[in-house]
Amino acid sequence: MNKKWLNSLQTRTPQEGFELAIKLAQKGVEYTQPSEAIRKKLRPKYSRDPDSLTMASQVIAINFQTVAAANDYWRRRTKINY
Amino acid sequence: MNKKWLNSLQTRTPQEGFELAIKLAQKGVEYTQPSEAIRKKLRPKYSRDPDSLTMASQVIAINFQTVAAANDYWRRRTKINY
Amino acid sequence: MNKKWLNSLQTRTPQEGFELAIKLAQKGVEYTQPSEAIRKKLRPKYSRDPDSLTMASQVIAINFQTVAAANDYWRRRTKINY
Amino acid sequence: MNKKWLNSLQTRTPQEGFELAIKLAQKGVEYTQPSEAIRKKLRPKYSRDPDSLTMASQVIAINFQTVAAANDYWRRRTKINY
Amino acid sequence: MNKKWLNSLQTRTPQEGFELAIKLAQKGVEYTQPSEAIRKKLRPKYSRDPDSLTMASQVIAINFQTVAAANDYWRRRTKINY
Amino acid sequence: MNKKWLNSLQTRTPQEGFELAIKLAQKGVEYTQPSEAIRKKLRPKYSRDPDSLTMASQVIAINFQTVAAANDYWRRRTKINY
Repeated sequence: MNKKWLNSLQTRTPQEGFELAIKLAQKGVEYTQPSEAIRKKLRPKYSRDPDSLTMASQVIAINFQTVAAANDYWRRRTKINY
Repeated sequence: MNKKWLNSLQTRTPQEGFELAIKLAQKGVEYTQPSEAIRKKLRPKYSRDPDSLTMASQVIAINFQTVAAANDYWRRRTKINY
Repeated sequence: MNKKWLNSLQTRTPQEGFELAIKLAQKGVEYTQPSEAIRKKLRPKYSRDPDSLTMASQVIAINFQTVAAANDYWRRRTKINY
Repeated sequence: MNKKWLNSLQTRTPQEGFELAIKLAQKGVEYTQPSEAIRKKLRPKYSRDPDSLTMASQVIAINFQTVAAANDYWRRRTKINY
Repeated sequence: MNKKWLNSLQTRTPQEGFELAIKLAQKGVEYTQPSEAIRKKLRPKYSRDPDSLTMASQVIAINFQTVAAANDYWRRRTKINY
Repeated sequence: MNKKWLNSLQTRTPQEGFELAIKLAQKGVEYTQPSEAIRKKLRPKYSRDPDSLTMASQVIAINFQTVAAANDYWRRRTKINY
């Protein structure tokens, strides 16, 4: 359907994992409202509403659970110390 | 009850898994409101409301947790590199 | 308290598992509002409100996580191919 | 603080597990609003609001995830068939 | 930052685990609104709103998932019977 | 994209883990609304709305699930008693 945007859930660092979670949250919105023009029009509204921001942070948190589990919480990384 | 629409939670790639999560979210709506005519009428409203879009993205995120776990987060795929 | 309606979380297929998740979501409502007459009266309202439908889909998604885990995501089924 | 109301998360059947999940959801409300008189007054309102009922079903679903995991999804029960 | 309030997620009983989940939910509020005076002023409002109570119960349920997992669902406790 | 703010999900104590969960919740907001000026303007509103506070506590709870799992619920810590 869509062009390729998600190759893997593995990331090098937890921060990149968090940024992937943000991308997944955005993609969930994009698949529901494909028009970039409409999405841009909505942005000023929700980005100044505190509850909308909390809700956005919640979707990121849910996706971050998935990404973190996929990376075994980056546990091994701590040991091998790269 | 319904005709067959879900054969497996296994997908080849994470992106196909994400798209299956979207399908599961839509099916949850369809079972609750089976009339396609009514669902289409509701679409313009919620697809222009930022909080509705965030909520839709959240249901996708929850379903993606399930699909990703079902695929062991596509970990093996990385190794065998197909 | 209630008569028997849930014997097992195991289902033969993922789709039957999804339908069980729907049943669990409905039962959560029924235990909270036991009157079928009242529930029927509420139906026209929420089944035409897009956010209510998304919320319903979310409860199904949460229950589907449980049912899918209970069935080990129907992984073995794929192999034995029945 | 409170008198004893929760001895175990283990239940004999999935249905008893679901009913325990309902009890946990109610207890979450009771600890927040200890007055039974006030809680009873609120009941007519939320039990006739479809979104309130969906939200109640969602809290039950979240608690049922916990109870089901605590019982290993009643998997062994299926085998020993009591 | 804060003085010590959380030493361990392990509790002796499931009920103490539930009460710890309540504490975690309250702490989430306290870190966001540190003023006890303001929090007390808000209490009469949300503790009489049924949806606010359901939302509070939901946060407790999410934290209880964490605490219950941390205690392996108090499974061993059942066996050794202390 | 962003400068480094998340090195690891591992923390020494559960309380530090809870505080990391708060940071993750805030970062989810910051990535969505990068302007600190706007975020500060929104603060007085949501920090006095009880439902906004409950929602904030919920996002913290979801992130705490991730952090707690990443630390194996600080179980070993209890034994070695440092």
